[in-house]
Amino acid sequence: ALAQAAADCFENLLLTGRHVLITAGPTQENIDPVRYITNHSSGKMGFALAEAAAEAGARVTLVSGPVHLPTPDRVERIDVVSARDMLAACEAAMPCDLLIAAAAVADYRPEVVAPHKLKKNPANGEGMLLQLVRNPDILATLAKRPDRPFCVGFAAETDNLLEYATRKLLDKNLDLIIANDVANPNIGFNSEENAVSVIDRQRHETRFDQASKGHIARQLIAFIADRYQ
Amino acid sequence: ALAQAAADCFENLLLTGRHVLITAGPTQENIDPVRYITNHSSGKMGFALAEAAAEAGARVTLVSGPVHLPTPDRVERIDVVSARDMLAACEAAMPCDLLIAAAAVADYRPEVVAPHKLKKNPANGEGMLLQLVRNPDILATLAKRPDRPFCVGFAAETDNLLEYATRKLLDKNLDLIIANDVANPNIGFNSEENAVSVIDRQRHETRFDQASKGHIARQLIAFIADRYQ
Repeated sequence: ALAQAAADCFENLLLTGRHVLITAGPTQENIDPVRYITNHSSGKMGFALAEAAAEAGARVTLVSGPVHLPTPDRVERIDVVSARDMLAACEAAMPCDLLIAAAAVADYRPEVVAPHKLKKNPANGEGMLLQLVRNPDILATLAKRPDRPFCVGFAAETDNLLEYATRKLLDKNLDLIIANDVANPNIGFNSEENAVSVIDRQRHETRFDQASKGHIARQLIAFIADRYQ
Repeated sequence: ALAQAAADCFENLLLTGRHVLITAGPTQENIDPVRYITNHSSGKMGFALAEAAAEAGARVTLVSGPVHLPTPDRVERIDVVSARDMLAACEAAMPCDLLIAAAAVADYRPEVVAPHKLKKNPANGEGMLLQLVRNPDILATLAKRPDRPFCVGFAAETDNLLEYATRKLLDKNLDLIIANDVANPNIGFNSEENAVSVIDRQRHETRFDQASKGHIARQLIAFIADRYQ
């Protein structure tokens, strides 16, 4: 009877039997063996989403850039460094039913990674020019595959948040996009709380008021699971 | 009798009555509100030196870039982000008797910090040019002051370690330089152990074999205190 009750309970979970792939954290793009370009993503939102998805019964693969966070229970974590590493790890983890791309992937990387630490060159005078090239777009790449999952993106912006988020949703062929105002120091990067808006393909906006990232994550997983079904 | 014994013991400490200023960790140089340039310094060596200097009886000021480390006992810690912040914090902490510059200060920063998150610009095609300018040299700046302390630098190099370290010692007018081979993954950045050579103005090299950063730090503080006196 207990086993049946447990099975009933498990069957009722929103994401039982689903494979959810989540990316989290920043990426690091090397300039040389010592220096790199990165961003202020702490990974907290992506890790909270992974925990909430596992609680909802999903099999969760979490592909994470360099962060200082413990792995949530029942989550398979794959650590990566660069955007190209992250894309390769995501491709290896496919197929999945749901993709939630919460990582703050570096859009650009240095064109050349110096094999030795770059020395200050007096001939350069006071400056140095760093040539950057575009990184692959992980979410757009996975959203174009024949086994395309239900795709949820993040837009972390400091200005024109809803306009940029809607454009990203349509340009990358996503199902939902979560808009995150990172100019507000109370929410977003490195903070414990968040407040987001989710935009769908009909451009309808659903707001989630400021709360802990864990609480927002559970609300978002319930919302995403509902839209996915 | 106990008070006298304690006083005798305290008087025998190598750095009693000395003010030691230590820099540690990386610096972060913003590209825009989201992106920045940094390096792989964990701050562990500088924090271990601060702990060892405090144990040796010194008053310790630790100026640290962004790291994930607890503050050692009896150490005054000042957190900074950029190289220019670090220089200002060090200048505010002067005068000191001993300066140990263990921070991996970014040599370059973006010339312009964009006030808003930079957008990918299709007109740029696949690339972006980032103009970098030189940061102030914290150690050389402090070594030029009329109240110049005894100056100990670090040379973290991947190649030609002793040659570059000796050149840095002479160029920056230091008293000692600690040479650190960061190309060896067992020691240096982000590892728990280190192995270093200390070079003095007579170009004499003293080697400290691989050990925990705490052990190396205590050996280095004893060596530095001996040379300072």
